[in-house]
Amino acid sequence: MSTQKTFTLAVVGGDGIGPEVTAEALKVLDAVSAVHGVTFTRTEYDLGAKRWHATGETLPDAELEEIRKHDAILLGAVGDPSVPSGVLERGLLLKLRFALDHYVNLRPSKIYPSVGSPLAAPGEVDFVVVREGTEGPYVGNGGALRVGTPAEIATEVSVNTAYGVERVVRDAFARAQARPRKKLTLVHKNNVLVHAGHLWKRTVDAVAAEFPEITVDYLHVDAATIFLVTDPARFDVIVTDNLFGDILTDLAAAISGGIGLAASGNINPDRTAPSMFEPVHGSAPDIAGQQKADPTAAILSAALLLDHLGLTEAAAAIEAAVTADIEERTGAPRATAEIGDAIAKRAAG
Amino acid sequence: MSTQKTFTLAVVGGDGIGPEVTAEALKVLDAVSAVHGVTFTRTEYDLGAKRWHATGETLPDAELEEIRKHDAILLGAVGDPSVPSGVLERGLLLKLRFALDHYVNLRPSKIYPSVGSPLAAPGEVDFVVVREGTEGPYVGNGGALRVGTPAEIATEVSVNTAYGVERVVRDAFARAQARPRKKLTLVHKNNVLVHAGHLWKRTVDAVAAEFPEITVDYLHVDAATIFLVTDPARFDVIVTDNLFGDILTDLAAAISGGIGLAASGNINPDRTAPSMFEPVHGSAPDIAGQQKADPTAAILSAALLLDHLGLTEAAAAIEAAVTADIEERTGAPRATAEIGDAIAKRAAG
Ligand SMILES: CC(C)[C@H](C(=O)O)[C@@H](O)C(=O)O
Ligand SMILES: CC(C)[C@H](C(=O)O)[C@@H](O)C(=O)O
Repeated sequence: MSTQKTFTLAVVGGDGIGPEVTAEALKVLDAVSAVHGVTFTRTEYDLGAKRWHATGETLPDAELEEIRKHDAILLGAVGDPSVPSGVLERGLLLKLRFALDHYVNLRPSKIYPSVGSPLAAPGEVDFVVVREGTEGPYVGNGGALRVGTPAEIATEVSVNTAYGVERVVRDAFARAQARPRKKLTLVHKNNVLVHAGHLWKRTVDAVAAEFPEITVDYLHVDAATIFLVTDPARFDVIVTDNLFGDILTDLAAAISGGIGLAASGNINPDRTAPSMFEPVHGSAPDIAGQQKADPTAAILSAALLLDHLGLTEAAAAIEAAVTADIEERTGAPRATAEIGDAIAKRAAG
Repeated sequence: MSTQKTFTLAVVGGDGIGPEVTAEALKVLDAVSAVHGVTFTRTEYDLGAKRWHATGETLPDAELEEIRKHDAILLGAVGDPSVPSGVLERGLLLKLRFALDHYVNLRPSKIYPSVGSPLAAPGEVDFVVVREGTEGPYVGNGGALRVGTPAEIATEVSVNTAYGVERVVRDAFARAQARPRKKLTLVHKNNVLVHAGHLWKRTVDAVAAEFPEITVDYLHVDAATIFLVTDPARFDVIVTDNLFGDILTDLAAAISGGIGLAASGNINPDRTAPSMFEPVHGSAPDIAGQQKADPTAAILSAALLLDHLGLTEAAAAIEAAVTADIEERTGAPRATAEIGDAIAKRAAG
């Protein structure tokens, strides 16, 4: 338990439905904070498509340094069709993840019986993906030559280091150790991406020796997508690289009741910089501003935030409120704010 | 229609269940060939784990050049746990795909009502993935430094060229044009892999101008996995890079009745070298030699082979026989050879 009573929070609503779902997450955060005797002092940062159109800026370094001073970051969603693809993703979202050394991208998946799944017989699903967050094909280490000509060549370099792989693998083992099933699955593609894949495999094998209670297995990423559909209950903790983690967690969200429920934490386990919490879903510009978005993923991300700050009871209160709310869902659509209100009331109750 | 009557076929059974399922594919191929007045002269190549253990060879260049002289190649599966991961995949399977310029890796997906799907409500699913086969992260253009030390760094380079992207995109558009729904979806990750992603996107946009009847859309690879689970009926032709195609086609197989039915063609559309046909599934060493494997994917791969050689009636006869066989499946297990016998009999009947 933390003894700290006041926390500073940087808030980036972002684009599309980002601000709407973030507002509900903050509503719930405030409601539980009041009950648990803590306060969040918020600073909002106006970052995203509007800012870029107005000023050409994505995330100026001075603002990044301000954000860095906070205890945690809550983010909505980033990206808009009016901005060239990649500008906001690389210049804002990934800049935050990389600069703040969010090397553990934590993404839990769970099937709530009342929500169901597109799968006919999903079984009991409750696993977490530990996605590496600061290396792999996401490093931006590529380029292009002779762009727009028939002789164009474009490369993307996946960079993997023993330093980067070992720290995330250790984190994943520690999480598996704390879970009842104590199982860890490495997902990679080491029969093709042999250099990176063998580094991952050797690292997992080495760290496994220190965790004799953990059952370890390995799946190629293509086979992992099959099991996520045919036998998702087989998974407990999955550890994988940045790109495979991106793909697997959207698939995991799809089989477990939808992207509207998928929360994530971009975590710096060494606490040398604030961690950042955001729903897995994107900015969904087609439904933005219409109170149609489900804020549950953003609200569950706020629970991960509380947990990271050591406010475990407050986190559990949000999770219980969400579970209760989900169990009563009838399928009749509610406005974004109505869902937030209902969960806030329960969480504070 | 082809007027050629005799074809040469290079056969690589490979590892695990590879030889078993290949035997059934050949049985069916022979049965329809007899009826349709064509002959396949076969040469078997002893390649795979056993050969590697005995001689250290994966695919000697001289043997590759012999294989190159054939009209087509039928391959079972490659890979065994007794061989370091990547040795056979890179040294045999990918060597064939790259050396023979198999730039179109064609992978159809279809839900047979009688087989069903792990999805509760899949809808009518009938799409084809055109996976690029000679570029992307599969080029083997990576390396590692200081291996086994805490300072290790491993890279994997995805190489994409206008030449390579345009030719596969053109092929995908031509296939979409020949299909009733005339829809093409590009799958990439152009918000993160901006150099490669933008090359793909610009190429699709440019070629689209020549195909005004085709509806074109774009999905990030993570979003594509969601739609494959929540709305697979939305897809007609998917065009994507080598790695994304690997992942999406295993997922596509999973949602459409399993990897036991997924066929593929590694096609050289310019016919400068023989094309190669193989089931999408792996060597499944755990069930090898037990007559437990479903040879249907290998048999359907033989149908793709016939189609590629212009023997469209013979190809259709196999497809019809497989469909009829699948419709009568009761779930009671049949031996690999029994399934092959049943389909061969129907296909020749
Ligand atoms: C928006 C995009 C850059 C991001 C990613 O690829 O990581 C998103 O898909 C996610 O999973 O958080
Ligand atoms: C065996 C492996 C190298 C191969 C690939 O990754 O292409 C397989 O997964 C496939 O899809 O044909």
